[in-house]
Order: sequence, then structure tokens, then C-alpha cells
Amino acid sequence: MVDKKIVGEKAAEFVKDGMVVGLGTGSTVFYTIQKLGQLVKEGLSIKGIPTSVQTEELAKELGIPLTSFSEIESIDIAIDGADEVNSELELIKGGGGALLREKIIARAAKIFIVVADSSKRVEKLGAFRLPVEVITFGYEMTEKHIRAIGLVPEIRLNGGTPFITDNGNYIFDCQIPEHVQPEMLERMLNMIPGVVENGLFVGMTDLVITLDQEKNVVMLRR
Amino acid sequence: MVDKKIVGEKAAEFVKDGMVVGLGTGSTVFYTIQKLGQLVKEGLSIKGIPTSVQTEELAKELGIPLTSFSEIESIDIAIDGADEVNSELELIKGGGGALLREKIIARAAKIFIVVADSSKRVEKLGAFRLPVEVITFGYEMTEKHIRAIGLVPEIRLNGGTPFITDNGNYIFDCQIPEHVQPEMLERMLNMIPGVVENGLFVGMTDLVITLDQEKNVVMLRR
Repeated sequence: MVDKKIVGEKAAEFVKDGMVVGLGTGSTVFYTIQKLGQLVKEGLSIKGIPTSVQTEELAKELGIPLTSFSEIESIDIAIDGADEVNSELELIKGGGGALLREKIIARAAKIFIVVADSSKRVEKLGAFRLPVEVITFGYEMTEKHIRAIGLVPEIRLNGGTPFITDNGNYIFDCQIPEHVQPEMLERMLNMIPGVVENGLFVGMTDLVITLDQEKNVVMLRR
Repeated sequence: MVDKKIVGEKAAEFVKDGMVVGLGTGSTVFYTIQKLGQLVKEGLSIKGIPTSVQTEELAKELGIPLTSFSEIESIDIAIDGADEVNSELELIKGGGGALLREKIIARAAKIFIVVADSSKRVEKLGAFRLPVEVITFGYEMTEKHIRAIGLVPEIRLNGGTPFITDNGNYIFDCQIPEHVQPEMLERMLNMIPGVVENGLFVGMTDLVITLDQEKNVVMLRR
């Protein structure tokens, strides 16, 4: 938990007065949001856009002013966690189920920062299963199409019934083939009707804040 | 209406005993479904998968037995209309708002037949605005991303408020650039987080049933 706190809080340093800030979801960015709450109390003026209901509630508790997409022209910075990060700064996200909103906000942000303790850093993506969000209609057929491109999907459950995302969809957690190019895989998944989004974040990350083995903060840039 | 009836009914000839049949939505495929209802009454044994609530109700009225994705392995044939068809058998669909379900079923079908009177045939797609289905969360930002790739989106309204699809999403009706390759455009749209699906059907159609200027039935194959 100390590691998550160090990298999470570090990210808050990139947030400047007047910024619109995309607020991620998860146990590391939790500390970023905590820190931002403290800075707001000390006079920092920002507007947050939360990626999940959970983060929205946390931000409200901490007194971080929130805004909505209808009120803004762009997002200055977004900060979020990841389930896996490789050396190309490609990510797998979506373990928490908020991947679509996270991706919309990451894509919309001028700067996208990922906070990840060393346990999230991998040489190759895929030990963590890739979340794929699908429309409930015809999901059995969508599963077949996902399987046909080489993945092994398993529907995410929540107490015995399918987990439902904030957008009313299902999630398949998918084993991915060993030698697959993330960019290619993302494109193939996006071409399947019924697939809403997937947890691959390719070419989106500007900066990863993490720790080296001696627990020093390390910044990985593209 | 006579034209629609001729091509719609013609498509029913391709449906054989024992088939699982994807049932499209719209004013032309309406006649296909009517005809199938008649054939079922005469002893044809099929199972239908409807692409919309509207078609589901029509099929039930006509006594066509329905099935669901959980009960079948594949779809033998799907029959649907289109808003535009070009000579490559590429389509724009989604004027009725059911594009996602229609695309899931077209993709899942072994044979996909399009019924289209001559008014739907075009040299180049795009006089009909391309429907793009998007998640309601962050749709203002998604609109900006759609605009950024050269389209002119306008949110579809229903009595002054946004039209909601069967999947709970919004639709943008989009003017597309004049010299755009449908396949490329489809891929670019699918890469935008927040875009669920678009009305371009590329490389899916096996057969278009239409009429020539003398009102003869014409079959266009890939």
C-alpha cells in the first residue's frame, strides 16, 4: 500500500490550477484523488471528471468540484491506474469494470498519466486477462467471434450472475494469444459487432509513474 | 410499395426447412417476414431471430417460432433491408435505429441477403447520413472525436430529446466525407472509444435482391 501511495500522490504534482482533470478508478489512483482533495482544500482550483460512480462519490466526499462533458471543451490531464503496463507504455485495464469510461476520458485528455506500482509492470501483456465489454444482446454469438480470433473468453460473474458495467453491458475476461501485437488485437476486437470496447490502451499513455526495485519514483515517457 | 413487396417476398425463397433465420427490420423485409409467416402456416419449419422488438412482435403475430442466441449454434441465413447499397454490396444501415442488432445478426449469419428496391441503390454511399451508435456517457466528447475524422455528426432526436436505441445508446447521423473508403471509415469509427457501432456494412453481404428499371428482379452477388 505504501508503494501505491507514493506513485499515486506523485501524479498529483502534474495537476495545475484551472485544469479539468480526468479522475481514474482503482486502488492506486485513490491516493492521487486523496491528494487532490487535500490540495483543493489548500486552494487548488480544478474541475474533476470521474471515470466511475465509485470515484465520483470519493471526489464528492473530498470536496473536489466535478464537471460534466457538456460543460467542458477538453480534458487537460487524466490520471488512472492499470492492470498491466509494458515498456511501450501499452496497458491492459478494466479489472475494475470501468474500462469504457476510462478509455473515453484517456482518449479525450491532452495528457494521460498512468500510476502503477512495480507489480503492474510486465514484459509482455497478457498474464492479466483482457477485459472486453460487450452488448448483452447476442453476447453468446459475440463470444464465438471473440474465440474465432484466438482469445479464450470467460464471462465475468458477480455472485453467480453476469457482472453488469455502468453502461449496462457484460464483460468477457479473455486469455490472449502469446504472440499477439496489442495494436492489431485491439483493431480486430473493435471490428466485432457486439464488442463495445476492450481493455487495451495502445498509443494513449504519455507518462507512467512507477517505482524501481529500490522504491525510487521512476517516470517512463513515450 | 409494390417494389418492396416483390423483392421482399423473393428473399423468402432462400429460406429452407430447418433453418435458423435472422429477421431484419424495415419496410421491405416486412414483406419477407409476411411471406415467411404464410410459409410457416403451410408447414415450413424455421426458427427466427429478430433484430428488433418491432420485428419480434410482427413475427409473433404471424406465428413464426422464435429462438434466442443461447439456444443456437449459428444462423443459417439473415435477411434485412438497407438504406443504401452500392455496387460493391456495401451498405449503409441504421435509419431505423436497430443497426447494432442487425450487424450482430448479419455477421453471425452464414448467408446474408439484402432486400432493396431501386431507390436504395447508389453509386457512392453517403447521400443517406451514416448512423453511428454511441454510449451516452461522454457523448459530447465522442461527438468531437467523430468530427475530428471528418464527419459531421448530428444527434438523432425523438420529440425533442435524444433517440435511445434498444441497447440504451444514442445515435449520431453523420455526413461522411465525399471521397472516403467505407472499409477505412468503418475501422476509424470503431477505434473511437464511446462508438459502439456504425451503420457501414462492408464485406458482409452475400446477395442483394433488387429490381432493374423494368421492374425485373435482379440478384447482385459478390
